[in-house]
Amino acid sequence: MRDLMKFSKIPTATITRLSIYSRYLEAMAQEGVKIVASDKLSQKCGVNPAQIRKDLAYFGEFGIRGVGYFVKELLFEIRRILGLHKIWRMALVGMGNLGSALLAHQNFIRQGYEFAVVFDIDPGKVGRRLPNGQIIYHLDEMESVIAEKEIEIGVIATPAAKAQMVANRLISAGIRAILNFAPIQLQVPEGLAVEHVDFTVKLDNLAYQLTMANT
Amino acid sequence: MRDLMKFSKIPTATITRLSIYSRYLEAMAQEGVKIVASDKLSQKCGVNPAQIRKDLAYFGEFGIRGVGYFVKELLFEIRRILGLHKIWRMALVGMGNLGSALLAHQNFIRQGYEFAVVFDIDPGKVGRRLPNGQIIYHLDEMESVIAEKEIEIGVIATPAAKAQMVANRLISAGIRAILNFAPIQLQVPEGLAVEHVDFTVKLDNLAYQLTMANT
Repeated sequence: MRDLMKFSKIPTATITRLSIYSRYLEAMAQEGVKIVASDKLSQKCGVNPAQIRKDLAYFGEFGIRGVGYFVKELLFEIRRILGLHKIWRMALVGMGNLGSALLAHQNFIRQGYEFAVVFDIDPGKVGRRLPNGQIIYHLDEMESVIAEKEIEIGVIATPAAKAQMVANRLISAGIRAILNFAPIQLQVPEGLAVEHVDFTVKLDNLAYQLTMANT
Repeated sequence: MRDLMKFSKIPTATITRLSIYSRYLEAMAQEGVKIVASDKLSQKCGVNPAQIRKDLAYFGEFGIRGVGYFVKELLFEIRRILGLHKIWRMALVGMGNLGSALLAHQNFIRQGYEFAVVFDIDPGKVGRRLPNGQIIYHLDEMESVIAEKEIEIGVIATPAAKAQMVANRLISAGIRAILNFAPIQLQVPEGLAVEHVDFTVKLDNLAYQLTMANT
């Protein structure tokens, strides 16, 4: 309980940065890098060393002054903090172009996220078996399928007009966390975790850099 | 030049947060909200008020103490800072599921980004006209098309194995900024702006919240 209280004060931005650190640490681990200097990690991630130290300090002591961080150790710890020591089972709702692209993207399973079930409402799609073995279920089967398959995260890849309805049904089915790709702000009850993927936020960074370069 | 030097010290995280502030301010402007209290904006964006003040202070003085921020004024200023006072012309490379989903996503044009041209290598796709009027060009036409259509940003939605080759060709064609959806780290020359969209970073936030809730 003490840990929970301590953890609950951690800013979202810190969690997002931990996630980014883990991506670079993973790449380094794959390349066989054993130790990374704090300024090297800082440069790779675009976060200053003091911020990295501050982010990690929420969780304990990491790294050795004047040496750096042990890549695998830090990666292991960050993945443990983020809850990535297990595979998270997800339901994908919406088997349009975006849904198909998400299913095919290798990053999810590599990072510990599995699309265990898929839902749609199109009679031409429902019942079909996908290359990975999942069957496309109808939305009306959501409650029983989600309970049976022990799904923890719902991923919404429907058109904007359907996204709130889908969110409501996911929540009634017992889902506590939603990743929303539809371009609307979802209304959800207190205590539900929702993240919204907006493809254009990263474009703003590019637009800014181009604007500065032309100043 | 003085402005450029001042601006070039601004952290990427600040630019990303400005982008997030602008999304919430836009939603408020659409709802007819005229003034937003600093703690309300803070709560919406999940960024503490001191950080918001610090981010904005790079660019000037905003808001009135004890009152808050004028929604439209702040939105206008942030969009100007980010370079969103114009429409950015983009080339999409890769007309698979992800490319199709990106083309159909309403957020891009709403935020000031237009897919002006589309490239692929599939003979079954090249030459086809898309619903929005774009023609799918072959990759080999890239140099001339990008110059002629005054494209500024390249968006890579190809499989991972093709992404570096596509990046190289975009760069030879004169593109200075790339948004990469392929799950690989691109190697690009110094001075080129590259952003990588990783769908799983937001999932890490959800996994963390679920893990904490179950502690």
